[in-house]
Amino acid sequence: MAEVNKPFKRILITGAAGALGTVLREALKPYASTLRLNDRSALGEVAENEEHVICDLADKSAVFEMMKDVGMVVHLGGAPRENTFQVVLDSNIVGSYNIYESARQTGVRRVIYASSVHAIGFYECTQTIDADVPQRPDSLYGVSKAFVENLSRYYFDKFGIESVCLRIGSCFPKPVDRRMLATWLSYGDFAHLVVRSLVSSSVGHMIVYGNSDNSANFWDNSQAGYLGYRPKDTADIFQDEVFSQTPIPDPRHPAIRFQGGQFAADGHFEDPKVDQHS
Amino acid sequence: MAEVNKPFKRILITGAAGALGTVLREALKPYASTLRLNDRSALGEVAENEEHVICDLADKSAVFEMMKDVGMVVHLGGAPRENTFQVVLDSNIVGSYNIYESARQTGVRRVIYASSVHAIGFYECTQTIDADVPQRPDSLYGVSKAFVENLSRYYFDKFGIESVCLRIGSCFPKPVDRRMLATWLSYGDFAHLVVRSLVSSSVGHMIVYGNSDNSANFWDNSQAGYLGYRPKDTADIFQDEVFSQTPIPDPRHPAIRFQGGQFAADGHFEDPKVDQHS
Amino acid sequence: MAEVNKPFKRILITGAAGALGTVLREALKPYASTLRLNDRSALGEVAENEEHVICDLADKSAVFEMMKDVGMVVHLGGAPRENTFQVVLDSNIVGSYNIYESARQTGVRRVIYASSVHAIGFYECTQTIDADVPQRPDSLYGVSKAFVENLSRYYFDKFGIESVCLRIGSCFPKPVDRRMLATWLSYGDFAHLVVRSLVSSSVGHMIVYGNSDNSANFWDNSQAGYLGYRPKDTADIFQDEVFSQTPIPDPRHPAIRFQGGQFAADGHFEDPKVDQHS
Amino acid sequence: MAEVNKPFKRILITGAAGALGTVLREALKPYASTLRLNDRSALGEVAENEEHVICDLADKSAVFEMMKDVGMVVHLGGAPRENTFQVVLDSNIVGSYNIYESARQTGVRRVIYASSVHAIGFYECTQTIDADVPQRPDSLYGVSKAFVENLSRYYFDKFGIESVCLRIGSCFPKPVDRRMLATWLSYGDFAHLVVRSLVSSSVGHMIVYGNSDNSANFWDNSQAGYLGYRPKDTADIFQDEVFSQTPIPDPRHPAIRFQGGQFAADGHFEDPKVDQHS
Amino acid sequence: MAEVNKPFKRILITGAAGALGTVLREALKPYASTLRLNDRSALGEVAENEEHVICDLADKSAVFEMMKDVGMVVHLGGAPRENTFQVVLDSNIVGSYNIYESARQTGVRRVIYASSVHAIGFYECTQTIDADVPQRPDSLYGVSKAFVENLSRYYFDKFGIESVCLRIGSCFPKPVDRRMLATWLSYGDFAHLVVRSLVSSSVGHMIVYGNSDNSANFWDNSQAGYLGYRPKDTADIFQDEVFSQTPIPDPRHPAIRFQGGQFAADGHFEDPKVDQHS
Amino acid sequence: MAEVNKPFKRILITGAAGALGTVLREALKPYASTLRLNDRSALGEVAENEEHVICDLADKSAVFEMMKDVGMVVHLGGAPRENTFQVVLDSNIVGSYNIYESARQTGVRRVIYASSVHAIGFYECTQTIDADVPQRPDSLYGVSKAFVENLSRYYFDKFGIESVCLRIGSCFPKPVDRRMLATWLSYGDFAHLVVRSLVSSSVGHMIVYGNSDNSANFWDNSQAGYLGYRPKDTADIFQDEVFSQTPIPDPRHPAIRFQGGQFAADGHFEDPKVDQHS
Repeated sequence: MAEVNKPFKRILITGAAGALGTVLREALKPYASTLRLNDRSALGEVAENEEHVICDLADKSAVFEMMKDVGMVVHLGGAPRENTFQVVLDSNIVGSYNIYESARQTGVRRVIYASSVHAIGFYECTQTIDADVPQRPDSLYGVSKAFVENLSRYYFDKFGIESVCLRIGSCFPKPVDRRMLATWLSYGDFAHLVVRSLVSSSVGHMIVYGNSDNSANFWDNSQAGYLGYRPKDTADIFQDEVFSQTPIPDPRHPAIRFQGGQFAADGHFEDPKVDQHS
Repeated sequence: MAEVNKPFKRILITGAAGALGTVLREALKPYASTLRLNDRSALGEVAENEEHVICDLADKSAVFEMMKDVGMVVHLGGAPRENTFQVVLDSNIVGSYNIYESARQTGVRRVIYASSVHAIGFYECTQTIDADVPQRPDSLYGVSKAFVENLSRYYFDKFGIESVCLRIGSCFPKPVDRRMLATWLSYGDFAHLVVRSLVSSSVGHMIVYGNSDNSANFWDNSQAGYLGYRPKDTADIFQDEVFSQTPIPDPRHPAIRFQGGQFAADGHFEDPKVDQHS
Repeated sequence: MAEVNKPFKRILITGAAGALGTVLREALKPYASTLRLNDRSALGEVAENEEHVICDLADKSAVFEMMKDVGMVVHLGGAPRENTFQVVLDSNIVGSYNIYESARQTGVRRVIYASSVHAIGFYECTQTIDADVPQRPDSLYGVSKAFVENLSRYYFDKFGIESVCLRIGSCFPKPVDRRMLATWLSYGDFAHLVVRSLVSSSVGHMIVYGNSDNSANFWDNSQAGYLGYRPKDTADIFQDEVFSQTPIPDPRHPAIRFQGGQFAADGHFEDPKVDQHS
Repeated sequence: MAEVNKPFKRILITGAAGALGTVLREALKPYASTLRLNDRSALGEVAENEEHVICDLADKSAVFEMMKDVGMVVHLGGAPRENTFQVVLDSNIVGSYNIYESARQTGVRRVIYASSVHAIGFYECTQTIDADVPQRPDSLYGVSKAFVENLSRYYFDKFGIESVCLRIGSCFPKPVDRRMLATWLSYGDFAHLVVRSLVSSSVGHMIVYGNSDNSANFWDNSQAGYLGYRPKDTADIFQDEVFSQTPIPDPRHPAIRFQGGQFAADGHFEDPKVDQHS
Repeated sequence: MAEVNKPFKRILITGAAGALGTVLREALKPYASTLRLNDRSALGEVAENEEHVICDLADKSAVFEMMKDVGMVVHLGGAPRENTFQVVLDSNIVGSYNIYESARQTGVRRVIYASSVHAIGFYECTQTIDADVPQRPDSLYGVSKAFVENLSRYYFDKFGIESVCLRIGSCFPKPVDRRMLATWLSYGDFAHLVVRSLVSSSVGHMIVYGNSDNSANFWDNSQAGYLGYRPKDTADIFQDEVFSQTPIPDPRHPAIRFQGGQFAADGHFEDPKVDQHS
Repeated sequence: MAEVNKPFKRILITGAAGALGTVLREALKPYASTLRLNDRSALGEVAENEEHVICDLADKSAVFEMMKDVGMVVHLGGAPRENTFQVVLDSNIVGSYNIYESARQTGVRRVIYASSVHAIGFYECTQTIDADVPQRPDSLYGVSKAFVENLSRYYFDKFGIESVCLRIGSCFPKPVDRRMLATWLSYGDFAHLVVRSLVSSSVGHMIVYGNSDNSANFWDNSQAGYLGYRPKDTADIFQDEVFSQTPIPDPRHPAIRFQGGQFAADGHFEDPKVDQHS
């Protein structure tokens, strides 16, 4: 695509140093004249058409500056798995508030948010759910993902800032356990889903499930039909490998029964004990 | 298919001179010993196995005569887009009543009716709807389409005349704007959908959405599973062309937000002002 | 209520000479400084605070004049039961279009429309339906009621004219058959329902069922909760009388099985035969 | 797959002498070190890795012995079509109770049960149903299938014995009438569906429809997404053959209107008349 | 009501010697010229207008004779609580089949069947369910109740025999534990519910919940609106008594969590051990 | 009730100094041997059977100490209306986390949480919603309420701590605007609702709407049937007063259209401007 035809002037990607950010750093090149990349630590060499912003999302002023002159935001930043409440609070709750509140002040029109299966991880694998079921987070991490889904709906209902919340399953190079045969999202399909969220004409506020074209599947994604997401990869080709390398599971174990897998089974990620402090 | 094996003796097509009628005039040849074609103006040369009936659907007696000795009717006739109420009334409301009432009197068993996306055009593009949602017409034209859907249900519930109402999206040679990437119905898929509606064993009263196998899609057509409609074309192959030729849309504009597109945005098709007459 | 406190300046009632119109002519007095009453024939003496307009609703210019300087319209006018298609067309379809199109031109903000059980009369009595089920009219009369429900939704979605469509069951002095033990709407409850529709703050486009507090009931009216309609009468007090005066019914007869009662059972209201004209 | 890698130690197949049992006898070989086969009459030569148990499922003690040392059961046994109530009672109701109660006592963890379209055969073909609709059996045979579906849910809810109930459409070498163009399940797809039911991690209690990838389809199987069933065959390739060999049907005939086909149309399978005995 | 005005000629009550049968023996007197009472053992003195039939429902010929010349049947007979499978089979499954099959042969038009909360006893108390949820029996007794619900639907769908299945909660003189504050059905309300089921015009096949007007309630009975059941009693007046006499429950105990109460918690009603016989 | 019969040993009420806390301080006396009251500032005289704990809910250690030896918690504490994000974060998000995490560590079994209409305030007044619709908060305050609803579900799903989340409408001495005619919850009904939440046997995780028996109503509370909440008051008696004292509203104004009222209309509660700091 010729430079002049790139559909967006500047796209901001938060969490750009992580695995998913790295995928998008490459995949979104054709879609913006400038990619502004953000993370807490260095992002390597600044490629042509890139801008790098190193800051913590909990730093409100820094976020505000970063959001200026941006049309679209792909918001991947934050703690990527269960952690202490304080970390979840700072990275995911405060950080995402800063993104949305800055979006309101700087005039950003759309945010693509990396939500997660862990926002609904306490549904059973045998339940097929759509995007309108009540959230059932499986961890504090999942609670924070549900928080941002609701926060983004508020910013759309009141201020008209569009959002697509992607409930990403398991976005890794390949599935490594039996549950991921259902939840796996290939890097390619992830990038495709983000692109569809960017280029669709009028997304309002949507919640969309993100997995590849896997035979096993917990999710009814038909409400996202407008996006036109059509995964091209499938976990099925890894099935024999996964079956041969993993034991036959106990169907009653929480990590097997629930969509969130191990997150639903894990005990609490312990804060430092209160009584140790008292 | 040998003549003796043609499944229907006589199929009537109303609105046969239009674009869609022309498609069916060719596509339905193998399915009936005789195609009776109707329009308001001349239909060109009378091909073998064709009968031509030139009349206005608002002419009740003419319609009654035309419906004699007919087994199946494909009813495309009427005003094809928004118009003054008087035109909509005569062409679509009175005309369709004449079709159904004649069907009752002459013993026609099934009508395939060309309804439209405009019967539900005020749903938002981000809503995925099935055929049971309340109608939300986007124009007087759409109101008349909803009228015939209800009229046909009445004729089935009381008199057993079967109908398949096809809510046709955008049936054109190719999609020419971004919305049509979701609503486009190729001529081939349209013909296939009509054929499935004709040959299925027991359709009762059905409402079915008509679009091709487009990635972007507003409609849950699973209730039409019995028809066995499987589109073979897709608007996806036109996506790059459409994107490059159309500007990035404003997501808040009614023509972008609503499934009916420009119909939902247009002001009223003005009748001659009443006060000019008073 | 003191004159100065009457909530509305002018309410128009169409069909004011009928039984329901007569009820409202009295009941709405406290709610408007002026009641403008319309029917096709004379309405008797003009009471204080009344204005009378004698015209046919099919007369567009007359309707336009009548709608000037009106805030709220209670639209009861039209053919009150099954009739030939021509009568239904002129009285109910064209007449109601004239009301809504004039409302748009004159700035009326809300219409209370007398729809009917016959818009959904082909549901079985054992089905409990809400206001979102697809319409299933039991007669041409019912088809016309469904038409106006859709027309009014169009005028709200595009032009912001609010409507409450009241699906009136059986509004008579008392129930006279077993079905009316479910569908009966007392005159008092009817007036109360109209008043609630007038005074509620923001009705958008609503469809509401109209029956009294009868033990037997086909309808789930919970979607109308916002109106705050609480019927005060009940058909139950007439049950013994009705049971003793009517025979035990055949449960398979259409007039017994379907919510529309006799309308669902009646053959077609015959137009003059077409073939008599040809 | 090497012997040591076979996922299950011993699978029991009841009704193994029938057509479907014969399919599984071959197809499940790679999945168990031992296949224990059961039927009422001889099962031919005992192949390597096979065990044969000849007994009637109504014989409780024999069933109990047969169920020992079994991990998974594929329960096909019983009367395969409409019969007198006594036969249905003994073969399907008592026989299946013996299977489940023995499973409880011997520690079997999962049963794959061959239920049937006839458990829901009185839905109309134009209705698309999922697995949560109330059962509507079309025959005493269908009533017994519904019974086992409920019995198996009880054994899961109270005792944790998992079940997958397969509502099999028409499992034959090829479709031979128009209805089977929707309901046909190829032998290969049947075997695939059973395998998926065996190897999925945690099935709880599921009800799943069993048909191939046919264009015409009455069933919404999305609730079974977790199983990852993807049919590879389609009845579509037989459509021309079926159409040419079967007459155009009367859409009002019960065998045409209802999903159960001829079962829904047949009169009662007569017991010996009671009054002949009295 | 004068004899000549009694609405039914002959009503049969099975299980007439039990507590509920005794209630109806009195309550239905005004509704039938003759009450035919059935149980397995003597029913006391034969009152005026009564007929007594002593027989086991498993005796097909006897049931057939008993069903002659009957218009309406209230079918209460069978094992009233959990029992061995053999007892449940004979009393509830075979016995009810005999009732329905005789109804078909003798021309009975309607059966009121005493189903039970135990047909759906494995739903949690915090779930509000309507009559369309899948059955979830909590016992073999409950499985047999679900069986008859399905059997009766079959006899309606195929033969037009109407049924009202009453899912009775706890029909006792008064509630004696905390769960019964929700499930209690007074004798008076039970009789009223049976009467409504008898006199309603066209019941088709209905499933209805039976409890009094208790504040605590698991059931959405709105689908039964047509029957016009309005309970007059309430368990609320017994609340203080029940609270003071029962301990604060453990919310995790199955008898507390599930709608079926103790039935959901009880272990299996043991058959004689199979291995004792082998 | 005699002391010995008080059902609970110790109930903790947070936010006890507020209007609702004051209501419960009196109303819950009969239900606990000890009421432990918490707020940030002094709570007046310590009555018999009271314990006072003055602390901020953001103080984790203090909350942990306060939660010891408590059976039931009624959690009212936190910012009671829209505020800056920092206040909402500290008071409602961190504070409620401290409550739930301490509950887990100290063994509290149930929390009654004062959620709010503002968790779903962006539904329109004409929509009747139940407790399973996706949250649509109308303010940061509402976002925090939705957060605690999800947090409490997590603590139930993983740790078994029961919660009843009360979506309180407008709990004031009397309704003072037209919207409150629907949302008003009298103090008496509020206390009754809390008591029902405390004494019900097994609440799991529930979301319940809290308004009185008002004719106008947006909410379908049937899912809360198990609680047995029956309001005794009604806003209806204040209707004339409210109507006479408030102007006829503009139906298009957000404060009129949306269930959250003024909260849905208000602009953002401004944080100190970021750019003032930079």
